[in-house]
Amino acid sequence: MAKSNVKVLGAWPSPYVMRARVALNIKSVEYEFLEETFGSKSQLLLQSNPVHKKIPVLIHGDKPVCESLIIVEYIDEVWSSGPSILPSDPFDRATARFWAAYIDEKWFPAMKAIGAAQGDDARKAAVEQVAEGLAQLEEAFQKTSKGKDFFSGDKIGYLDIAFGCFLGWLRVTEKMNGVKLLDDAKIPGLAKWAEKFSADPAVKDVMPETDKLAEFAKILAAKMRGAGAPK
Amino acid sequence: MAKSNVKVLGAWPSPYVMRARVALNIKSVEYEFLEETFGSKSQLLLQSNPVHKKIPVLIHGDKPVCESLIIVEYIDEVWSSGPSILPSDPFDRATARFWAAYIDEKWFPAMKAIGAAQGDDARKAAVEQVAEGLAQLEEAFQKTSKGKDFFSGDKIGYLDIAFGCFLGWLRVTEKMNGVKLLDDAKIPGLAKWAEKFSADPAVKDVMPETDKLAEFAKILAAKMRGAGAPK
Repeated sequence: MAKSNVKVLGAWPSPYVMRARVALNIKSVEYEFLEETFGSKSQLLLQSNPVHKKIPVLIHGDKPVCESLIIVEYIDEVWSSGPSILPSDPFDRATARFWAAYIDEKWFPAMKAIGAAQGDDARKAAVEQVAEGLAQLEEAFQKTSKGKDFFSGDKIGYLDIAFGCFLGWLRVTEKMNGVKLLDDAKIPGLAKWAEKFSADPAVKDVMPETDKLAEFAKILAAKMRGAGAPK
Repeated sequence: MAKSNVKVLGAWPSPYVMRARVALNIKSVEYEFLEETFGSKSQLLLQSNPVHKKIPVLIHGDKPVCESLIIVEYIDEVWSSGPSILPSDPFDRATARFWAAYIDEKWFPAMKAIGAAQGDDARKAAVEQVAEGLAQLEEAFQKTSKGKDFFSGDKIGYLDIAFGCFLGWLRVTEKMNGVKLLDDAKIPGLAKWAEKFSADPAVKDVMPETDKLAEFAKILAAKMRGAGAPK
């Protein structure tokens, strides 16, 4: 496929940016990846997403599309050059959207709270909350995957992307806090799913390496603690 | 149309519940409205939405669909017995979803902050934040309505529903705090849109009356301040 008029404004450590890139990979859409510099915002970003001023932004021709899950739906609707990302059945679509929203609004904020927790008791409570969320997601996985590899069945789809793009940060959280979250004794389906997702051709080149991401996380944490941290 | 196998678990003051009802009205789908009692949760609600335990839930046959905007998309995808709710163009869909998410995540929380503000300065700051949001929404309205009555054009659609179902609470906020938010000198498009939306046949019977909603808001505020308030 010829180089298309598609740009992604992003940064490699962002799980939200990764969602857009995986969706474009699934559709075999070539795109230009314009990396934002950490701590500053380009003029193009400010113009393209004046409301939130946040990455990712997908620029298709001259049209900017913002918010990662909205970008994934847009990509699915515009390009038919690959498998469907959203399920075709309306109830299955609603279920996938429900869990994707749950992950963004409840589960990932709980995971971020592990790193931010002050003291062992607070950290333990945060870990338990994340584990409870994973148990709910394991149940959802068992229901929707129907014995196949992915939430969507044979191929990765909307909920796989929504959840799977947090796997890098999940592994960093495990590493930096000495905890086991993707425990195959407790959530065997998700533990296996995580491996399959990470190895998928649409994913493997954009999934950040755990050690590199952990280094980034340390720098980020130091900047947030330090004086004069960039916004 | 015969009574269908559709139920909505809800409560009349909820803007989120109203979204589901307006979408069903647009599609001329008859449904049973099962009102939850304020301060308690029915067994059916706990079973149907075990993750969030929140209204609205749409029960279609034996399948529960949760989260108001997901319900609206589900209704649009399942029933063709009325005009489309989502725009047909992918970019227009992405734009409608973007502003709907903005309203839920930024604008409505800001409006709730007006009522919760302690002191005149805090209230003034909250009012200014809401007014800024309305100015952004006015700009979005001018762009997407293209001179027609609604965000979606001739007929109410996704963003009209997402935003319009907060109009009751907006009017209550104006009344209880002595402020003008829908100011037709500043946001003439939205001021006119609000009237048209409220008078729409799919809306008028489910839009709560401002005085009745203000009474409910007073009871709610008293319960939240008081000891032994129900959760």
